[in-house]
Amino acid sequence: MTVLILTCEEDVTADMVVVHLHESGVPVVRLDPADLTGSVALSGEYVHGSFRGHLSSGGRMVSIGGLRSVWVRRPGSPAGRAAEPSAWLTEESGQALYGMLRGSEARWMNHPDAARRARHKPWQLRLAQQCGLPVPATLITTFPRAAREFAERYPDLVVKPVSGAHPQDPPRAVPASRVPPETDFAAVAFGPTLLQRRVPKRADIRLTAVGERLLAARKATAVNADPGDVDVRFTASAEPWRPAEVPPRVAEAVREYLRSSQLAYGAFDFAEDGDGTWWFLECNQSGQFGFVEVDTGQPIARAVADWLARPDPADRVQPGGADTAVI
Amino acid sequence: MTVLILTCEEDVTADMVVVHLHESGVPVVRLDPADLTGSVALSGEYVHGSFRGHLSSGGRMVSIGGLRSVWVRRPGSPAGRAAEPSAWLTEESGQALYGMLRGSEARWMNHPDAARRARHKPWQLRLAQQCGLPVPATLITTFPRAAREFAERYPDLVVKPVSGAHPQDPPRAVPASRVPPETDFAAVAFGPTLLQRRVPKRADIRLTAVGERLLAARKATAVNADPGDVDVRFTASAEPWRPAEVPPRVAEAVREYLRSSQLAYGAFDFAEDGDGTWWFLECNQSGQFGFVEVDTGQPIARAVADWLARPDPADRVQPGGADTAVI
Repeated sequence: MTVLILTCEEDVTADMVVVHLHESGVPVVRLDPADLTGSVALSGEYVHGSFRGHLSSGGRMVSIGGLRSVWVRRPGSPAGRAAEPSAWLTEESGQALYGMLRGSEARWMNHPDAARRARHKPWQLRLAQQCGLPVPATLITTFPRAAREFAERYPDLVVKPVSGAHPQDPPRAVPASRVPPETDFAAVAFGPTLLQRRVPKRADIRLTAVGERLLAARKATAVNADPGDVDVRFTASAEPWRPAEVPPRVAEAVREYLRSSQLAYGAFDFAEDGDGTWWFLECNQSGQFGFVEVDTGQPIARAVADWLARPDPADRVQPGGADTAVI
Repeated sequence: MTVLILTCEEDVTADMVVVHLHESGVPVVRLDPADLTGSVALSGEYVHGSFRGHLSSGGRMVSIGGLRSVWVRRPGSPAGRAAEPSAWLTEESGQALYGMLRGSEARWMNHPDAARRARHKPWQLRLAQQCGLPVPATLITTFPRAAREFAERYPDLVVKPVSGAHPQDPPRAVPASRVPPETDFAAVAFGPTLLQRRVPKRADIRLTAVGERLLAARKATAVNADPGDVDVRFTASAEPWRPAEVPPRVAEAVREYLRSSQLAYGAFDFAEDGDGTWWFLECNQSGQFGFVEVDTGQPIARAVADWLARPDPADRVQPGGADTAVI
């Protein structure tokens, strides 16, 4: 049974995982959907009530029925590197490739439906609440009056994008930033705005979940840190990430979040306040883990490889609940 | 409890359903996400572990917690009609709107995840097979040799797009058409191609499924029909659609298809052969029904209204299986 990795050619994180898979002797096929219909080809036949499908990459052939798991890492746009690329060819190629893979019984990290749903920040916040994770008071609104009223209750606010990254090419991350006092909020009427109570933090927490394994890392906030620097991705810091214990209640809530969201992988960001409480900020279903592994030495790539290689179907995390057989 | 209809302004099909909802006294809010952030506004607050959200359309306010059901009919692109539209504003507005709605407990026709998955033709074919529906022998391939070999086994073939509609603006339906004998198939290497055994048909069947209700219509093939006209959407015909009985085995299989795909609505197309067998061609999760209702007098709009109005949560068809509470 083969592990299929969908990613672009230059992907150091995938390389790290492939090393472990090779060590354990598990067959791996790695391909970029962008290489359809060049070095990547596909074929699937529906005859007499059954399906037989194949993928080929660089001349290597793999049966879709023989896939153990599919890792959706950083796949390119289907047929994006075709000789004559077009929106139509991309649509046809994407439907053919993912449509066939969706009919397989392989385990997904992460399933495309679960991944898409998990990107919705408002949904993340609600799910985190329901799982019992502390969520800082948050407002998403296009009503200036609602924003003003919220700012009266929570004067110390940060503003963030609702959706994550700005869709330019390449996509650009938009930093969370502090809302100055006396902000007018009239512009809220022109686009949904996410306002969140700022958590006075003593550390950032990155919790990487791989199936049932939870690996947490902590980066202490520098004593002389500017309280205006709220987004750890954009602040230089001499503090390294260090391994951290996951409090049992957080572990339980995170596992519930993964079960409910049907994610096999998630990178959770928390802010740790002065009391040691971990406040849920977001869960990125495709978050990077290389920088944490480098700082902490935690075996995250190894955990990913183990999950992908695992033959046990009992651990399947798949959208569709009871109907996984036909997903 | 309110029914929310997401659709564009000019939508006669939605009008038909709204008439029935008004008759039964069920509150309805109809809005087009394209009108964010003009006449449509939203606000959602996550405080103390709970969520309170509101939508407003043309000055009418509705609580997200008070939604009974959401009908995703023909919604425009979020913020598509904003004063200064942009990909970024569309992304932010879509995440805010659908992210909040996904956190509600309303029933969906259809849920966005189920709808997206259901558009994959290769997945449809596999699911139809697994539900026991007869599927004409089909090949989806980028291998010319596989296409040639398939054409030897099944000399009478049609070719169709894998994905459905050509993504031009407005999208254009691509007709299925017959494959001439002696076709070379070399071009298959440049894009995935769907080849399917042509069913010599004596009628087209359109089966509209609304929750548990199945309404089938049949359009007899004209005696002098050109066998090259394989796509009923593109052939003029004096034959009207007439109501048809659904064979019990087909009904059972279609209900299984709906359960597995988690669709509340689906428009199934079949070809009826000389033996009376219904061959599955596709299931369009957003297929039109107005033309069938006009010809047959079948109460499809009424069935949709009844489903949307139904207070019974036991009928919920939602992605997420056992975890619907947090979807």
